[in-house]
Amino acid sequence: MNVKERLAALRAQMHEQGLAAYVVPGNDPHASEYMASHWCEMQWLSGFNGESGTMVVTLDRALLWTDSRYYLQAGIELKDSTIELMRESDIDCPSVAEWLCGELRITNDELRIGVNPEMFSVNDFKEWKEKFAEAGIGVKSVDLIKPIWTEGRPAIPSDKLYPYSADFAGETVESKLARMRESLESKVESQKSKDYALIVSALDEIAWLLNIRGYDVEYNPVVISYVVLEADKCTLFVNPEKIDSAAQNYLDFNNINVQPYEAVFEYIHGLRGTIFYDGAKVNEALYEAIDKGPSDQGPRTKAKNIQSPILVDKAKKNAVELEGERIAMRQDGAALTRFFKWLEEEAFQQPRTEWDLMEKLHEFRAMGENFVEESFGTIAGYQGNGAIVHYAATKEHCAEVKKEGMLLLDSGGQYLDGTTDITRTVWLGGRIPQQAKLDYTYVLKGHIALQTARFPRGTRGNQLDALAKQYMWQAGITFGHGTGHGVGHFLGCHEGPQNVRTDNNPTPLEVGHIISDEPGIYRTGQWGIRTENLITVIPAKQTKATTTEDEWLTFETLTLCFYDTSLIEMNLMTEDEIDWLNAYHVRVYKEVSPLLNEEERKFLARKCAALEVGE
Amino acid sequence: MNVKERLAALRAQMHEQGLAAYVVPGNDPHASEYMASHWCEMQWLSGFNGESGTMVVTLDRALLWTDSRYYLQAGIELKDSTIELMRESDIDCPSVAEWLCGELRITNDELRIGVNPEMFSVNDFKEWKEKFAEAGIGVKSVDLIKPIWTEGRPAIPSDKLYPYSADFAGETVESKLARMRESLESKVESQKSKDYALIVSALDEIAWLLNIRGYDVEYNPVVISYVVLEADKCTLFVNPEKIDSAAQNYLDFNNINVQPYEAVFEYIHGLRGTIFYDGAKVNEALYEAIDKGPSDQGPRTKAKNIQSPILVDKAKKNAVELEGERIAMRQDGAALTRFFKWLEEEAFQQPRTEWDLMEKLHEFRAMGENFVEESFGTIAGYQGNGAIVHYAATKEHCAEVKKEGMLLLDSGGQYLDGTTDITRTVWLGGRIPQQAKLDYTYVLKGHIALQTARFPRGTRGNQLDALAKQYMWQAGITFGHGTGHGVGHFLGCHEGPQNVRTDNNPTPLEVGHIISDEPGIYRTGQWGIRTENLITVIPAKQTKATTTEDEWLTFETLTLCFYDTSLIEMNLMTEDEIDWLNAYHVRVYKEVSPLLNEEERKFLARKCAALEVGE
Repeated sequence: MNVKERLAALRAQMHEQGLAAYVVPGNDPHASEYMASHWCEMQWLSGFNGESGTMVVTLDRALLWTDSRYYLQAGIELKDSTIELMRESDIDCPSVAEWLCGELRITNDELRIGVNPEMFSVNDFKEWKEKFAEAGIGVKSVDLIKPIWTEGRPAIPSDKLYPYSADFAGETVESKLARMRESLESKVESQKSKDYALIVSALDEIAWLLNIRGYDVEYNPVVISYVVLEADKCTLFVNPEKIDSAAQNYLDFNNINVQPYEAVFEYIHGLRGTIFYDGAKVNEALYEAIDKGPSDQGPRTKAKNIQSPILVDKAKKNAVELEGERIAMRQDGAALTRFFKWLEEEAFQQPRTEWDLMEKLHEFRAMGENFVEESFGTIAGYQGNGAIVHYAATKEHCAEVKKEGMLLLDSGGQYLDGTTDITRTVWLGGRIPQQAKLDYTYVLKGHIALQTARFPRGTRGNQLDALAKQYMWQAGITFGHGTGHGVGHFLGCHEGPQNVRTDNNPTPLEVGHIISDEPGIYRTGQWGIRTENLITVIPAKQTKATTTEDEWLTFETLTLCFYDTSLIEMNLMTEDEIDWLNAYHVRVYKEVSPLLNEEERKFLARKCAALEVGE
Repeated sequence: MNVKERLAALRAQMHEQGLAAYVVPGNDPHASEYMASHWCEMQWLSGFNGESGTMVVTLDRALLWTDSRYYLQAGIELKDSTIELMRESDIDCPSVAEWLCGELRITNDELRIGVNPEMFSVNDFKEWKEKFAEAGIGVKSVDLIKPIWTEGRPAIPSDKLYPYSADFAGETVESKLARMRESLESKVESQKSKDYALIVSALDEIAWLLNIRGYDVEYNPVVISYVVLEADKCTLFVNPEKIDSAAQNYLDFNNINVQPYEAVFEYIHGLRGTIFYDGAKVNEALYEAIDKGPSDQGPRTKAKNIQSPILVDKAKKNAVELEGERIAMRQDGAALTRFFKWLEEEAFQQPRTEWDLMEKLHEFRAMGENFVEESFGTIAGYQGNGAIVHYAATKEHCAEVKKEGMLLLDSGGQYLDGTTDITRTVWLGGRIPQQAKLDYTYVLKGHIALQTARFPRGTRGNQLDALAKQYMWQAGITFGHGTGHGVGHFLGCHEGPQNVRTDNNPTPLEVGHIISDEPGIYRTGQWGIRTENLITVIPAKQTKATTTEDEWLTFETLTLCFYDTSLIEMNLMTEDEIDWLNAYHVRVYKEVSPLLNEEERKFLARKCAALEVGE
């Protein structure tokens, strides 16, 4: 089937169901950042291969919403498909819901929209449904892709899962389950405090809770599955093929029952008592499976939308996880040292592209002990490409890199010990424009200000965001992405609930949270500069000068890699900042050099040389 | 009647109404910060004269909740009253609602609580009612104080109101009404866009909308009244005694109808169509007056809770209002210069108390052109008293001030031209402890960082809060109050919706907003240091370095008064900070000195002398 045939098949289904429109949102049932190809319904239906987009199909039109990163690609891939491109980054572009409520409404008297409830979180579905109800539009839960995507649809991955040792995780499954159960029990309002269940659908939460890992998704070592946690049992819903005898022993040992992946809906329907779910993550189909019907003795179940206690606890890394992060950071620092040495000394003996650099960096990282895979697709943005925030070079479409100008390199690794994510921007050669030095230094000053901040317990990331921006703001410069995201431990490179962003976020920073610290400046067509470390929240010592009972927090910098000091405008740096930089470079050398050979050590020593005021 | 007799009379009423408890929240019907004595029901019932508190009376107990500012006073004033003091600043103190839902619930099978709906905002009432409904407790709207407080109850003030010239206000009533009507019309969802009304109960909103002022409340030049604004008329509900012939002419000229204050309820009951109200301000009794019953042609009214468009517009000062503020600031600066000169050169020729200083400052302020009254009760906190954030000395209870140690002085004026609010902390004599200099300098650096910030349009105050705290945070010090509050124009010294606080606030800072910039450090028993300017948001020039389409904002400092430079620890100051301080002092001298005599000018010149780096 080609795209036109797929659309025709979908419309036949819509007609049968009495639907005026069908929406394919480009999600999976687990609210994943990276999806298994089985769930790439939007891509299959449209022929557009970008990572983000929403398809809307009506009886006579087909539209695809995507953001500015993908305009070019979508333009090419949607050609001759009859699908109209909706440029959602443009100010005058209506949202999917607006378009459906408005434009579509005019031409139809009675409207029903179809959506697959597995592809919407409970909260998103509720918001949509309310919006449509106001406009007199009904929403029907129905999967119309399944009946038509029968040929060539990739299966859900059946790779084996594996136990993740408590030596790395720092806590046994038994201990985690007991802690979660205690937390849930305290949230049950009825007398029967043991009469509860928690539905878990986020793959990183399941991996953390059960100390398991897998290969089902690129960049994230997770296992496609659901979990239902009850007072007296814990059930993992997963394709049985994924479990070998070692895994089976492990699950048995931990009293974890296994049921087939698809059995989760029926199982949920049979649950009674208080049923907890995190509406931001759990999909609407799971929620709809809950038996809400009343019985003679009152309603059978009480569904309760809560922030997942797994999410909250997973974010606070324990001492073993943090020690693992430190080990991974040394490996990562060694890989980057080797890469930058190669880049400076060897790379340009022949022509090089951004793709070559990405491959070479991967090669160096893969040498690291306990390296598993990259934690996201490396961004190697040369000159103007560095200014494209989500730039992703491919082997076919990438720029040649020369021994001059600016290179932005954002990359990370999944190690058994932990997850890394680092950005360094370096000058490859030629005269450095003064504005480039200024930009680099504003970014660096903000980057230092955030990771050296001290703050009272209770402070949220959005309160600290301006610390990283204040210097560039004074110069009339800002950037559009978050300053920091949460990071998992050998799990998602992006995780909640903590972050450092402009938007209000109610989550206070807590000891053990890991966040990135990555301000940037982007000059379209010229260069992009971003400097990123991972940092973790630690208790700060009480000072004698304190006036309050507050407990104090600060950050420990985890990432271990030098900065390109040739780009620093020293006149803008304070003594404190230079002292911090020098101390950091001493530490980088001390921690990374034992992993290097002599030549590499010499290179690193040169890069870590102390700066002096007035230099 | 004494307090015991009042409680007995209330209980008789409660018994008659079948109420298990009655709550007196210490509010007025206009959600005012400062109340007319007519509404001091909590004070009358309890005998406690603090400004803040909530009374709960049950059939056998009486309790008063108040915060730590008033523990001492309440302890004395409640003695022998049978009223139990609930210390609401203590961590283990239940809230009023918690106490009623919990402790009271145990002893009563069926419960109903009485409250006067005039004393609760719609939003607060709703929250309470829901909380009580969950606990199986009913809430009855009833005023039980009116029938028992018959003797000696102060009348609602009948002072005359007066027109406030558009020469000061910068906009005519006609223009304001037209703008508000346009805004409301756009919010009406039905076809009949003229079929709406806005209920206004906040006194500063009424004063701003109708360009009227009055004398009904201390510190705030407002008129006790309600307004109902419709497409074709505007009605002011006010005691007719308050209107003399000039005012009547003014109101007639502006087509403002007048009805008696109490007539508002019946008038609201007669309204049809969309009825807008700001549930954060409008009291529950007004809301209950809306006729929500259905008619044959569908429901009679649609009540819609919105943020008051008057609140939003009032906060954005026009050019005339801002010019007025600048004029008032010169007057204020002159008054403070005279005061500090007197303090340094004459005051201690005889013993002085904090109260003496407050009176003397009032004297100097009252000399100012267009001065009307103070904008709040002056805080003169000597030594350890400065560390009590809401310290209020009285003539009877105040400390002696000597020519040594620290004095915190927070005061402000209402001028026809605008409202001022300024805090300066000065050292009166003796050796300055090093910690005092450090504290003063951390505060000053934060105070400068906030008022010199540049930021993109859309930035909220809570994003900037950390800029004012970052230096003291590094020293492990913080403070518990907001860093900045909105300020009215010849109206409330505290107004919304903008502020600079730790708490998330969705309101972005906008051009014309006035806020205070007042970080502080408080050492119990030693000293309090606070430094406060009023600043207004202005557009910032686009820089050549900018990378985005963002519009940029910054602040103009309005307040004109020198800082005590003897308290500055110069080693902590950057060159930029010293440059700012010197430029500010040059400006203070230039703008204030024309109002001074020669001796005063000499004093001011000395106080404004330039500092040099390394001093």
